[in-house]
Amino acid sequence: MGGIAILKTFYVELPGRRYAIMTGQGLLTKAGSLLSKAGFDSAPIVISNAKVWRLHGPVLERSLKGAFGPVPVILIGDGERFKSHTTLMKLYHRMFRTHADRRSWILAFGGGVVGDIAGFAAATFMRGIPFAMAPTTLLAQVDSSIGGKVAINVKEGKNLIGAFYQPSAVLADIGVLRTLPKRELAAGLYEAVKSAAICSESLLGYMERRLPQILDCRPPEMERVVVETAKIKARVVTADEKETGVRIILNFGHTVGHALESATGYRRFKHGEAVGWGMLAAVEYGRELGLLRADESARLIRLVRSVGRLPSLKGIALDTLWNSLLLDKKFRSGDIRMILLQRLGEAEIRGDIKSESLRKFLKSFLAGNGSPV
Amino acid sequence: MGGIAILKTFYVELPGRRYAIMTGQGLLTKAGSLLSKAGFDSAPIVISNAKVWRLHGPVLERSLKGAFGPVPVILIGDGERFKSHTTLMKLYHRMFRTHADRRSWILAFGGGVVGDIAGFAAATFMRGIPFAMAPTTLLAQVDSSIGGKVAINVKEGKNLIGAFYQPSAVLADIGVLRTLPKRELAAGLYEAVKSAAICSESLLGYMERRLPQILDCRPPEMERVVVETAKIKARVVTADEKETGVRIILNFGHTVGHALESATGYRRFKHGEAVGWGMLAAVEYGRELGLLRADESARLIRLVRSVGRLPSLKGIALDTLWNSLLLDKKFRSGDIRMILLQRLGEAEIRGDIKSESLRKFLKSFLAGNGSPV
Repeated sequence: MGGIAILKTFYVELPGRRYAIMTGQGLLTKAGSLLSKAGFDSAPIVISNAKVWRLHGPVLERSLKGAFGPVPVILIGDGERFKSHTTLMKLYHRMFRTHADRRSWILAFGGGVVGDIAGFAAATFMRGIPFAMAPTTLLAQVDSSIGGKVAINVKEGKNLIGAFYQPSAVLADIGVLRTLPKRELAAGLYEAVKSAAICSESLLGYMERRLPQILDCRPPEMERVVVETAKIKARVVTADEKETGVRIILNFGHTVGHALESATGYRRFKHGEAVGWGMLAAVEYGRELGLLRADESARLIRLVRSVGRLPSLKGIALDTLWNSLLLDKKFRSGDIRMILLQRLGEAEIRGDIKSESLRKFLKSFLAGNGSPV
Repeated sequence: MGGIAILKTFYVELPGRRYAIMTGQGLLTKAGSLLSKAGFDSAPIVISNAKVWRLHGPVLERSLKGAFGPVPVILIGDGERFKSHTTLMKLYHRMFRTHADRRSWILAFGGGVVGDIAGFAAATFMRGIPFAMAPTTLLAQVDSSIGGKVAINVKEGKNLIGAFYQPSAVLADIGVLRTLPKRELAAGLYEAVKSAAICSESLLGYMERRLPQILDCRPPEMERVVVETAKIKARVVTADEKETGVRIILNFGHTVGHALESATGYRRFKHGEAVGWGMLAAVEYGRELGLLRADESARLIRLVRSVGRLPSLKGIALDTLWNSLLLDKKFRSGDIRMILLQRLGEAEIRGDIKSESLRKFLKSFLAGNGSPV
């Protein structure tokens, strides 16, 4: 695991409370003392999945045990389809079996799926118990572990049942990212590209220049990406916890992204990949509307395409995609809302999207497998 | 429905927001305009049950339609066993079918079961949409509709999955109470007796003096009971929204009450009846501990016994009851907590209950069918 170093601690500031995002190399080895300092004084119930637990469980467990004593661990299935009601009910029952009560707390140890469902379990178990996150994927470290959006999927769509429920601390050990499969790493990078695209042209430029090193998970480059992206997220959440205003821009790429995931039963795309496609769609559509300069859209398209190979759009029916999109929770009855870029690093919320024009665009986007024909 | 009169409006005051409890006769006939004034500007999704809807749906619907246009209505089963996960999932799916989105809101129209599950649906649907309550039972008007405790039951116990999620308005039409079955009315009265017992000796005295008129649902007496009891609840919730301190006293009678409900599969007792038994147990046990004066405990026992006939405790095994009690969420791992009376109108939270002594007491309480032998 190499040396231990806390790189950066920064905060999500909310009315009446704040919580720390701690990022660094090898943080898991001192998770117990870091979480003690964050205010926890008893052993958590750890929720994780088998793959993460096999790779990093022993290190975490040793550290937690040193600080808190023996730690109950509940493992759930790996993959978006386990972010379900069935898994949630199993989680509750397992928690009751460990004699969890209102004084218990949860440590979510894994990627976005673990964080979302463990966070929702924390939000609803006995009307809410505290939780902390130790995200182990790039996507979770830069995005899903920060901001308190917790949820499960239902057949009508992704994340449609959930809550705003903030963690008490986030512990992002950048060292664990070296064990991620390439595809998983790329999936997380799309979310980092997204944050840069809406908020930081300079981070975007950095990612363009250092993409090979980042994809190779080299420490200095990866650290910068994680820290800067997580900071963007923390800043936006601080400004708008409940997503009634500016936080909506974080959904750049998610309108079409969510619809793609839903239309393919959450099987074909990893979430970040769907967001990758969604960004391409938003950029191309924005270009149609005359929003983004051609050279800027070309830069973003090139970066997204260089991160990895996005699974094909082949076989996705327009009607299926369209219905999924209309069901998405970001749409008010009647009108369609989409996040588009004005320039790189600057997004705007557009509430005036014409349904017919978007549908027509998507037809062409699907037909050209992401390059509108 | 007689004349229309708003009797009292009072508020639950919370950090950064407050909401009105409106009580009066015939309020349902002006629900639309009252809810408009409370800030709602579109038609709610009404969640109710068939019995309530048959009796009072037409009046409510006419009024809502006048203010907001056509109103989708979702009916759930009547009874505690429908406060389940299965019902919740059906609710979500029905909501999606009415094209509910983040701008939708819910009006819970019914008793405690409807309020709790509709409130939890509101808390979790698309991470939370607003809701209002129009409680139609005495228990809901004086207790469960106020304070934002929403939940469902799981096999491990009652209300174990839920949230603190405050309504935006509560509309308590006292006129509808006249259509309540006697048993339902009595069940609500036990909660009113509870609130008086912990907070207001004068309300308790009033209920002792006017019990026949209250049981007969005479307007002035019932109005006073509803308004004063609801005010007690609003005051306690204002002081401690999340039940980390003083709000715990509202659980007087609930320690044994919940355990009785759970031990009998939520079938034998109505919630209020179980609380009735729970108060008798708390009073008798408090007397054993030398807490409450004999004449005061005799007064409370007499009042509880006069409200109605409590279903028998026969056949409830001590072990079953005890296990249910230990699973209750009000117990920290290790120690047992109970609300006991120091005198009428004054409760205290006792964290020093000896498990063996309580178990022994309950054995005798069960054996004597509520009069310890």
